[in-house]
Amino acid sequence: MVTPLRDRNELDHKGTENLIEYILSGGIHGLFILGTTGEGPGLSYEIRYELTKFACKRVKGRVPLLVGITDTSFTESLRLVEHAADCGADAVVAAPPYYFTANQQELIGYYQALADKSPLPVFLYNMPSHTKVNFAPETVQTLSEHPNITGFKDSSGDVIYFQKVVALVKQQPDFPVLVGPEEILMQTMLSGGHGGVNGGANMFPKLYVAMYKATKDMDFDRMQVLQKKIMEISSKLYTIGNSPAKYLQGVKCALSVMGICSDTLALPYKAFDAEKRKTVEKALDTLDLEIQ
Amino acid sequence: MVTPLRDRNELDHKGTENLIEYILSGGIHGLFILGTTGEGPGLSYEIRYELTKFACKRVKGRVPLLVGITDTSFTESLRLVEHAADCGADAVVAAPPYYFTANQQELIGYYQALADKSPLPVFLYNMPSHTKVNFAPETVQTLSEHPNITGFKDSSGDVIYFQKVVALVKQQPDFPVLVGPEEILMQTMLSGGHGGVNGGANMFPKLYVAMYKATKDMDFDRMQVLQKKIMEISSKLYTIGNSPAKYLQGVKCALSVMGICSDTLALPYKAFDAEKRKTVEKALDTLDLEIQ
Amino acid sequence: MVTPLRDRNELDHKGTENLIEYILSGGIHGLFILGTTGEGPGLSYEIRYELTKFACKRVKGRVPLLVGITDTSFTESLRLVEHAADCGADAVVAAPPYYFTANQQELIGYYQALADKSPLPVFLYNMPSHTKVNFAPETVQTLSEHPNITGFKDSSGDVIYFQKVVALVKQQPDFPVLVGPEEILMQTMLSGGHGGVNGGANMFPKLYVAMYKATKDMDFDRMQVLQKKIMEISSKLYTIGNSPAKYLQGVKCALSVMGICSDTLALPYKAFDAEKRKTVEKALDTLDLEIQ
Amino acid sequence: MVTPLRDRNELDHKGTENLIEYILSGGIHGLFILGTTGEGPGLSYEIRYELTKFACKRVKGRVPLLVGITDTSFTESLRLVEHAADCGADAVVAAPPYYFTANQQELIGYYQALADKSPLPVFLYNMPSHTKVNFAPETVQTLSEHPNITGFKDSSGDVIYFQKVVALVKQQPDFPVLVGPEEILMQTMLSGGHGGVNGGANMFPKLYVAMYKATKDMDFDRMQVLQKKIMEISSKLYTIGNSPAKYLQGVKCALSVMGICSDTLALPYKAFDAEKRKTVEKALDTLDLEIQ
Repeated sequence: MVTPLRDRNELDHKGTENLIEYILSGGIHGLFILGTTGEGPGLSYEIRYELTKFACKRVKGRVPLLVGITDTSFTESLRLVEHAADCGADAVVAAPPYYFTANQQELIGYYQALADKSPLPVFLYNMPSHTKVNFAPETVQTLSEHPNITGFKDSSGDVIYFQKVVALVKQQPDFPVLVGPEEILMQTMLSGGHGGVNGGANMFPKLYVAMYKATKDMDFDRMQVLQKKIMEISSKLYTIGNSPAKYLQGVKCALSVMGICSDTLALPYKAFDAEKRKTVEKALDTLDLEIQ
Repeated sequence: MVTPLRDRNELDHKGTENLIEYILSGGIHGLFILGTTGEGPGLSYEIRYELTKFACKRVKGRVPLLVGITDTSFTESLRLVEHAADCGADAVVAAPPYYFTANQQELIGYYQALADKSPLPVFLYNMPSHTKVNFAPETVQTLSEHPNITGFKDSSGDVIYFQKVVALVKQQPDFPVLVGPEEILMQTMLSGGHGGVNGGANMFPKLYVAMYKATKDMDFDRMQVLQKKIMEISSKLYTIGNSPAKYLQGVKCALSVMGICSDTLALPYKAFDAEKRKTVEKALDTLDLEIQ
Repeated sequence: MVTPLRDRNELDHKGTENLIEYILSGGIHGLFILGTTGEGPGLSYEIRYELTKFACKRVKGRVPLLVGITDTSFTESLRLVEHAADCGADAVVAAPPYYFTANQQELIGYYQALADKSPLPVFLYNMPSHTKVNFAPETVQTLSEHPNITGFKDSSGDVIYFQKVVALVKQQPDFPVLVGPEEILMQTMLSGGHGGVNGGANMFPKLYVAMYKATKDMDFDRMQVLQKKIMEISSKLYTIGNSPAKYLQGVKCALSVMGICSDTLALPYKAFDAEKRKTVEKALDTLDLEIQ
Repeated sequence: MVTPLRDRNELDHKGTENLIEYILSGGIHGLFILGTTGEGPGLSYEIRYELTKFACKRVKGRVPLLVGITDTSFTESLRLVEHAADCGADAVVAAPPYYFTANQQELIGYYQALADKSPLPVFLYNMPSHTKVNFAPETVQTLSEHPNITGFKDSSGDVIYFQKVVALVKQQPDFPVLVGPEEILMQTMLSGGHGGVNGGANMFPKLYVAMYKATKDMDFDRMQVLQKKIMEISSKLYTIGNSPAKYLQGVKCALSVMGICSDTLALPYKAFDAEKRKTVEKALDTLDLEIQ
C-alpha cells in the first residue's frame, strides 16, 4: 500500500481510509504497509508509527496486516516491530540494512537476532536494487528454519533466482514465497510461488486477485487476458518522466485522479506536474480494466 | 570519528571521551561524528542524539564539530540538524538519501530544501558505494551557490572526478573540497583539494595532520615518507577478513588494542574475533608510525 | 551447440559429428553454433570457419543452421557471414560489439549496416552479462522492421524485459523471440515467447523439446514435471567450482562423461579436474531424465 | 595512437604517417598502437596487421613501438604477436579476454601461457570498464615475476588501486607501472608510477611529455600550470555529445581539424557531425596550449 500524504510529513487520513477500504473491497488476502511502494524508509518515524496504528485500527483483522520495518538501524527496526505488535499487526517485513551492506553470514546473524527478539513473525524481503544485496538462496533456506521467520518476498525480478529459492525452501511447510513485480506474478506462481505483493493492486486490486485465482485454477485463457492488462498498466503508467520514482509517481497520481487519495510524495521525490498528470488521465481512460 | 559502543545500542562514554581527547591531541582541524566511519546510519536515534550532545560538550569549541545527519527520511535528518544546533555543533554533513535514489534534479531539490531549513551550514557528502548515487560535478557547482551549503566531502575515491568538482567550484570562495579515503589525501590536495576527512586519523591523528602540512608546504621528500606509512596502514589494517566492514572492524579493533575505546560494532557487523585481533596486534607492532 | 575441441585450437571432428547427430536425434528444431555456449568469441577464426563448414555439411538442411558471428570488428563479422552463406547456413546470430559499447542509436546503425550487407537473415542476440549493453525494447522494435532482421534471442534472464520486447514486436509477423536460459523456457513461452535456444539441449535435447511441446499444448502437469528436471540439471551441473565458466565446464564435462565429445575448453578456461568430473558423474547418475 | 582510417576498413596511410611524425616530434618515449584509443578490437585483422607493419617501418626504432594484441581468442592474439615480432615491434600489450571473463587464477594461467609463447615482451593492460575484470594487485605481482612480462598499464582511473599495485611490484626491477587516463598522470607519478600512456598525446604530445618531466623534476609550479591545461582538454574535448565514444570522437575530430589525419571511426561509432566539429574547433581556439 502506498502511504497517502497530505504534506511531506503529514498523513492523509481521509485518503488512507479510502485507500484501505478500496483495496480491501478488491478481495486481496493481506495488506503490506511501509514497504518500498509505501515509501517506508523515506518517512519520519512519527508517520511510520501513526500509519501503523491507523491501519491496524481500520483493517480490524479483516485481512492480515504486514508492517515494513526496514531500517539501517537494528534498534529502530526492533522498536517499530514492538509498536506494530502493540497495535495488533500480524507480521513485519524487513529488507536487509541498506547503507552498510552485509555479507551472507552477517545477513543470517542480523535476521536471527531480529527474529529472536521480534514479538511478531518476520518476513524476509529481497530488494537488491535498493539495498545493494541479494539474499543467497542458501541464506533464505537457513533463515526459513527459524521458527519466527515465516516467508520471503522477492522483488529482484529474477525468475531463475526465484525458482532456486522455491526449490530450497519447499521442505518448510507454510513458508510462502511471494513476488514483488506484478509483471511476473503469473510466471512466478507457475514456478512454485505462492502469490504476489504487487504495487498495482493499490489502483486495481481486483485485477491482481483475478490473476492470482486464474493461475491457481490453471485457467490459461484467462491468464493471457489478464496478463495483457497487467503489462499495459506497466507500460502506460510506470514509464512517465525520468525520475527513478516514476513507478511510484504513476501509482500515486493515478490514485489521485481516481479520487482516492493525495499524490504527494516524500522527499527526494515530487508528485507529477500537470502535464504528466494528463498523461496518466489519458492512460486511465484507455486502459481496459474491466474484470468479469 | 568512530562511535565507541559498550553494547550495540549503548554508547561507551569513557571510550568516547578518551577518543576525542586522543584525536584532538593529534592536532586535527575539525571533528566529524556520525559519518560512515561513525556508523551513523546504523545507530539508533537515541545514540545519535546522545553522541552529538556528548561530543559538543567535550570538544567545547576547541575545533569545529561536524555532525553527520545522513538519513533516508528528510524529516529525521532535519530533526537531527536542529538537535545538533541546540548542542552547539558547527555544521552538519549529509550524504544523499540512500534507499530511494534521486536523480540530479531531485538531489538539487533535496539539498536546497535541507539547506533552506537548516540552522547550521550543510556539507555535501559524496559516498556512492553506499548511497548508489554520485553528485554530478555540475550538481555540486549549483549547490555550492546556496549560502548555507559550505563544502563538499568526496569519498568516491575517483581523483579524476575530484578534479572536475574542484574546477567547477573554485570560483566559490571558502567552499572546501575534502577527500574521504586517506590513501589519496596527498594526491587530491595536489589536485586542488583542501584536506581530508580520514578514518585512519582515529588511530594516528598526527600522521594525517603531518601529511596535510607536508603537502601544504610542498615538502615532497616528507610526503613520500608519510605516504608509505599511510599505505602500510591501509594494506595491513584494512584487509583482514572478508566482511564489507573490514576497514571499520580494523579501525575499531586497533583502537581497542591501543586501549582507547571498545571495539563493538553496530549490527549487521561484529568485532574481530581473537585470531583477527592478533593480526591487528601484530600489524600495530610492525607499523613504523613515528612522526618526527 | 558447444564446440568440441581436441586441443585449444583444434576441432574435435569425431566429437562434433557425434554431437550433431545426438542433438538432432532429440528432435530439436534448429541448431545454433558459435554462440556463447559455443565459445564463439574465444575461438580462432580458423576454427570458426572450419566448424561452420563442417556443421553445414553434416546437418545437410535437416534443421535450420544458425551461425554466431558476434565480434568486436564489424568487418570480421561480415566476413564470417559471407563464409556461412557460402557453406549453406540458414541465418546468422549477432550480439552487439562488446569491447566498445554502443548506445541505442549506435546499435541501430550497427545492425542496419550489418543486415544491409548480410546475404543471410540476421538474428539479434541480447547477452548483457557479456556485452555490457542491453537492447532497449524500442531498439528491437525498430530493428524488427528491417526485412533482413528476423528474430531476437534474449539471454538477459529478465522475464519483465522479455515481455516488453514481445509486446513491441508482436505486430511483426514471423519475428520469433527466443529465450537463452533454459530455466525460464516455460515462463517466457507462457509470456508470448516462441521457444528457446538452450545450452542444456547439448546434453538432453529431448527434455527441452518436450518442454517446448508441453508448453505449446498447455499441458500444465507435464510442464511441472519437466521444469523440475530442468531445475535439477541447473542446480547440479552448472554450480560446480568457482569459475565464471562453470556452466560451460559442466556441459562439456557431462558430454565427455556421456562419451559424446571432448571436454576441452578454449582459454581462458580449463576442463574440470578429476574431482569435479566425479561430481558431474554422480550428478548424471542421480538425475532422473527419463522423458516419456 | 589513434588509428587513422580513410574508410571503416581502410587505413589512412598519409594520415598515419603524419600522425607518427607529429607525435614523435613531441618527444614522447614510446608509441602504443592498437590499444583502446587505437580502436584495436574494433578493427579487422587485415587493418591490424597492416598498421603494425606500417608503424614499425615508419618509426624505425626511434622509440620503442608497442602493439596492442587484446582479443577474445588466445590464438588470434598470439598470431598478432608473431606478426608484430616479424615486423620489428618492441613489445605487445594485452588486456584480458573480454567476452568471457576470467577469474584471477584463470587470468594468471592466460597470461603465463601468452608470455611463454610470445617472442616479444608482454605488457599487462588493465581496462576494467571495457573488459569487465580488474587484475587483483596480487595477480599483477605474480605475473610480474614472469621473465617475459615486463610492465603494467592501468586504465582503471583508481589511484588507490594504482598505489597498491605499485607497492606490490616495486621489488621487481624494471617493471614500469604506467597510467592510462592523462587526468591523473601527475598524481600517479607522485604515487610511484613511471609514466603515462595518454590518448591526449595524439593531439598535444609536448604537453604530456612536459608534465612527465615536471613531475620527475618535482617542479610543482609547472605541474600546476600543466595540470590546468590537461584538465581543460579533458573538459572541453572529451565531453561533446552522448556517445560512449565521445572521448575518441573528440580526439579524432581534433586531429582532423588540425589537418593531421582523418576523423573516421570504426563501427559502431561515427565521426562528429558538423555541429560537434564546430564545438571542437572553438575548443581548440580557446585552449591555451603553449608549452614553454
